[in-house]
Amino acid sequence: MNTTIAYLKNLRETFMEAFVKLETKGRFERKPWNYSGGKGGGEMAVLRGEVFEKAAVNFSKVEGDKFPGSDAKGPFMATGVSLITHMQNPKAPTAHFNLRYIETPDKKWFGGGFDLTPMGFPFIEDTKHFHAIAKKVLDPFGKNIYETFSRQAKEYFTIKHYGVERGVGGIFFDHYNTGNLEEDFKMWSSVGNHFLEAIIPIYQKRIVEPYSEADRETQLKQRGRYVEFNLIYDRGTKFGLESGGNPEAILCSLPPLVSW
Amino acid sequence: MNTTIAYLKNLRETFMEAFVKLETKGRFERKPWNYSGGKGGGEMAVLRGEVFEKAAVNFSKVEGDKFPGSDAKGPFMATGVSLITHMQNPKAPTAHFNLRYIETPDKKWFGGGFDLTPMGFPFIEDTKHFHAIAKKVLDPFGKNIYETFSRQAKEYFTIKHYGVERGVGGIFFDHYNTGNLEEDFKMWSSVGNHFLEAIIPIYQKRIVEPYSEADRETQLKQRGRYVEFNLIYDRGTKFGLESGGNPEAILCSLPPLVSW
Repeated sequence: MNTTIAYLKNLRETFMEAFVKLETKGRFERKPWNYSGGKGGGEMAVLRGEVFEKAAVNFSKVEGDKFPGSDAKGPFMATGVSLITHMQNPKAPTAHFNLRYIETPDKKWFGGGFDLTPMGFPFIEDTKHFHAIAKKVLDPFGKNIYETFSRQAKEYFTIKHYGVERGVGGIFFDHYNTGNLEEDFKMWSSVGNHFLEAIIPIYQKRIVEPYSEADRETQLKQRGRYVEFNLIYDRGTKFGLESGGNPEAILCSLPPLVSW
Repeated sequence: MNTTIAYLKNLRETFMEAFVKLETKGRFERKPWNYSGGKGGGEMAVLRGEVFEKAAVNFSKVEGDKFPGSDAKGPFMATGVSLITHMQNPKAPTAHFNLRYIETPDKKWFGGGFDLTPMGFPFIEDTKHFHAIAKKVLDPFGKNIYETFSRQAKEYFTIKHYGVERGVGGIFFDHYNTGNLEEDFKMWSSVGNHFLEAIIPIYQKRIVEPYSEADRETQLKQRGRYVEFNLIYDRGTKFGLESGGNPEAILCSLPPLVSW
């Protein structure tokens, strides 16, 4: 447990440093919070800049008496890092990343993944690159892992009322426990270690693309669908709000400006 | 049933006419849709103007084999009018109105109400006027009806994760059936008949208020909470999406521009 927490905290700093390097103006504002549903809490860090219109990179570690939802029972410990970006440039996609680790008396498991959501302007080469890194990360851990996690992302990140995917997918896993916790940690941390390799080259290319006011309007409309998914279907949002998590930390993933 | 449908259709036109009189530029765009979950459908009408940044006044009548949710069983017919406004001027509040009538083999009931949500700039005199009309409408139908419906609005329109009301309340009722359908229709239609008296005087006063860019930012942030309520907690939205309603019609209540 201590290893996972130290890993997550360190990973989070790495992500923030990488984003600050691309940003021309803003800096991360850190804000700690306490978990009202039990012990622990977290720290959100939000950057509102010129390149990253809004980026949030949050850490949390909470403990409670009663696991929220039907996945498990009894007391629990949950720790994780969540990251989301909303870019100024409509040609630059939104990226979402999460790693989480959960312990209950009966079971321990890993979850997480990363996925990409173009805001009206998908580039096939970006999708290919993003998925290629995901596959490279997972192949050492089993023949079909990438296929499974990628299919799970497709299923999970579906906006049911439109019957379409939220974005162009990525990887998603939950309740991951092969019985070998050490090996599972390796897979899980490898996902964390390669996220920047998946997203930074895309941003280097797209944040300098020219765009029009009409492109910006397309982006703001597309962001509306992102909000719909997060508030109606996302399990993490539901888990967070139901378990007495800090609403500001949970909802700081929402886009800075949206139109419907 | 035919009486309620005719009443709703006519009421809707009255609402639209009243809004167009206040509007300086836009007009309602009507768009019919078919119910994919069964028979029937509806028509949305959306005005995007200078006074009403976005107003939606929708009619629907749908029939299906299986009532969605746990409130009833078996086949159902549901008809209603839904109205929502998002004003350009931050000093002018958002208004929400709904009347609905539902029939299943076992029961028939009326529901609806209206409520007011200032977008960062509440005026006590507006709240008083709005509630005074609500009380005037309901008092003829029973001593405590206003108190009950007003308390129900307070409970229903609560954003649980913040523990605060969405706005300044109004009235809300559901599953209303006293055993005298004719008398219930009178109460229900009286709510419809007085909504304009509750909202128009407020708009006449507020749409000409001066406001700053900072006021506008406050308004856009406050609208975020409105979206959070509608997508996370609103029963109508949930019912609509789960019963195969038209997502465009259901979600056209969302604000034109929002910030988080």
